[in-house]
Amino acid sequence: MKVDGKDLRPIWIDRDLKTVKIIDQRLLPHELVIRDVKTADGIIEAIQTMQVRGAPLIGVTGAYGMYLAALNHPGEFIKNDYIARECERIKSARPTAVNLAWAADRVLDKILAVEHTRDRVDAARNEAGDITEEEADNCKKIGEHGLGLIQAISRAKEGRTVNILTHCNAGWLACIEWGTATAPIYMAYEKGIDIHVWVDETRPLNQGARLTAWELGKYGVHHTVIIDNASGYLMQQGMVDMVIVGSDRTTCTGDVANKIGTYHKALAAHDNDIPFYAAMPSSTIDWELKDGIKEIPIEQRDPDEIRYVQGLYQGEITSVLVPPADSPAMNIAFDVTPARLVTGIITERGVCRASAADIKKLFPEKMI
Amino acid sequence: MKVDGKDLRPIWIDRDLKTVKIIDQRLLPHELVIRDVKTADGIIEAIQTMQVRGAPLIGVTGAYGMYLAALNHPGEFIKNDYIARECERIKSARPTAVNLAWAADRVLDKILAVEHTRDRVDAARNEAGDITEEEADNCKKIGEHGLGLIQAISRAKEGRTVNILTHCNAGWLACIEWGTATAPIYMAYEKGIDIHVWVDETRPLNQGARLTAWELGKYGVHHTVIIDNASGYLMQQGMVDMVIVGSDRTTCTGDVANKIGTYHKALAAHDNDIPFYAAMPSSTIDWELKDGIKEIPIEQRDPDEIRYVQGLYQGEITSVLVPPADSPAMNIAFDVTPARLVTGIITERGVCRASAADIKKLFPEKMI
Repeated sequence: MKVDGKDLRPIWIDRDLKTVKIIDQRLLPHELVIRDVKTADGIIEAIQTMQVRGAPLIGVTGAYGMYLAALNHPGEFIKNDYIARECERIKSARPTAVNLAWAADRVLDKILAVEHTRDRVDAARNEAGDITEEEADNCKKIGEHGLGLIQAISRAKEGRTVNILTHCNAGWLACIEWGTATAPIYMAYEKGIDIHVWVDETRPLNQGARLTAWELGKYGVHHTVIIDNASGYLMQQGMVDMVIVGSDRTTCTGDVANKIGTYHKALAAHDNDIPFYAAMPSSTIDWELKDGIKEIPIEQRDPDEIRYVQGLYQGEITSVLVPPADSPAMNIAFDVTPARLVTGIITERGVCRASAADIKKLFPEKMI
Repeated sequence: MKVDGKDLRPIWIDRDLKTVKIIDQRLLPHELVIRDVKTADGIIEAIQTMQVRGAPLIGVTGAYGMYLAALNHPGEFIKNDYIARECERIKSARPTAVNLAWAADRVLDKILAVEHTRDRVDAARNEAGDITEEEADNCKKIGEHGLGLIQAISRAKEGRTVNILTHCNAGWLACIEWGTATAPIYMAYEKGIDIHVWVDETRPLNQGARLTAWELGKYGVHHTVIIDNASGYLMQQGMVDMVIVGSDRTTCTGDVANKIGTYHKALAAHDNDIPFYAAMPSSTIDWELKDGIKEIPIEQRDPDEIRYVQGLYQGEITSVLVPPADSPAMNIAFDVTPARLVTGIITERGVCRASAADIKKLFPEKMI
């Protein structure tokens, strides 16, 4: 996607075929640093320290981790137990990330299906590349399907600005291109539709203020950063036409797990008759879960992510302590929005209502 | 209220009777700095720069501003037009603060009713003192009435921990003693009821994380700081028994204006059948307004309050920039929670439902 006129992705493989390049997203928006990763350990570190984040990108990063593991195998041949062990190590970098396990396993299967070491390395690289392009393509399709929703609002408003609210970063930084929640936004921008995006700052890690605002600004999309607390007021005052968020996991019944605070957005949208959409590739849909609130495990992260806020001070990226040093804090990473509050989900196959019956119509082969 | 074993108020008059002492709340929780204010200009600055904040405290501070204006009058006598002008200046320090105008006018009336200069100064000091003690007394009564609600939950839970969620700081720092939302909490603590408080950090100025957590910690009340986004999840999981917030202005029909994000709490509480209370002295009730969402003006503040986050870094209070330097931001200070989402209001006269009829029963002399 465009950054200062140049095309950029959050991850790619260098021309030397030995180095994976990643944007260190911890330093955005204040510094755009590209890091070289040459080993599976480097990939694990990048995932664990959240240099890369976002479900699709974590998957792709894990796939490239498998490639680096294959490339750097010890001895003359890639042994099955070596590469299977590397796969487990990569998957455990972030155990709750469904896409990570899925992508790493997919590359492992390709490697194991090939006999010769040289071919195994090529197979790993090709499979990681395929996963990358599939993710980019899924996001493009999500954008094309979601575009229709924005166009309809624009028509209903006779061309006046369509105000879209989003939470966290479900943009191209979290994916490969287009993003999920942002894909319809970028498509609408490309079509010349008058849009404006309310960007929730998204505490505690401020991925909205840091990443979504940066992405949109670099692309030229009109946007305003707000605190997470403000969306209800904006909706009451008629200043929001639709909400689009991403998802970390969605049940086949339409319950949407996403960054903590998404449930508040959905409640406020519902209370003010504003459509609320979740955009995701179907790989995010968990076909075995029926009750998201009861069944989706919710990650708790380090309370210091709440206690310390990172930003720029005198040209340096610095963290400041906000609450009393001795006050306990709790850091819940996600929440679940029940399907009854979700107007629809936007997938690579189209838009449907957040119900088992409607999701089944789009993905008849997936439902149990 | 107790701070490290000593009694403290956010404002008091020094023994020399020439100096008003205030806690500079901008520096909490990291530094407890008491400032000397000796002039009306100093009072205006303290209000404008938010060294003092919170509706009741702003009122009391304005009353002491009137005392300092009387004390430091030029010439031999306090002239009527001088003191009336000083009153207008003090009131315009924060024009939307209803309590400020009310308290300053009250002291002005007392001054004007007295002829001799010496008596005028005494009258101003006495009236400011009366307002102070009335605010403290109102909060104490709010605490006593709200205590019953917590006791009832504690009994229903057979003595297990009562989890109370609060937003922003409606504590003694915002008042004189006890606070409004926190008064029932302190009373329950004094009664030995097992309570735990979820403290919303309350972006953008983090008055929850900075002030409420500090207050509760210094008093010994068990609490946990959370991000504003987390309350919905906690409520879904049965981890919140009641919500108590303060109010900046409440209509006589029960619509509650309070710190931005309060509406989200009320929506989540309603969706999970959790009682949601707003605590306030009746001076906060606007007897002329019927539709809070349409009629209560909402202050927009400097977007830099969103863009920069203040905290402690290497022993110094420092602010860091979070979003891209060129991303616009919007900072809305309050929102309005419609009465239909409010279980009840807690006042110095008792608890009632958030409806015109029930509020009228408590305050029959006030209703138009």
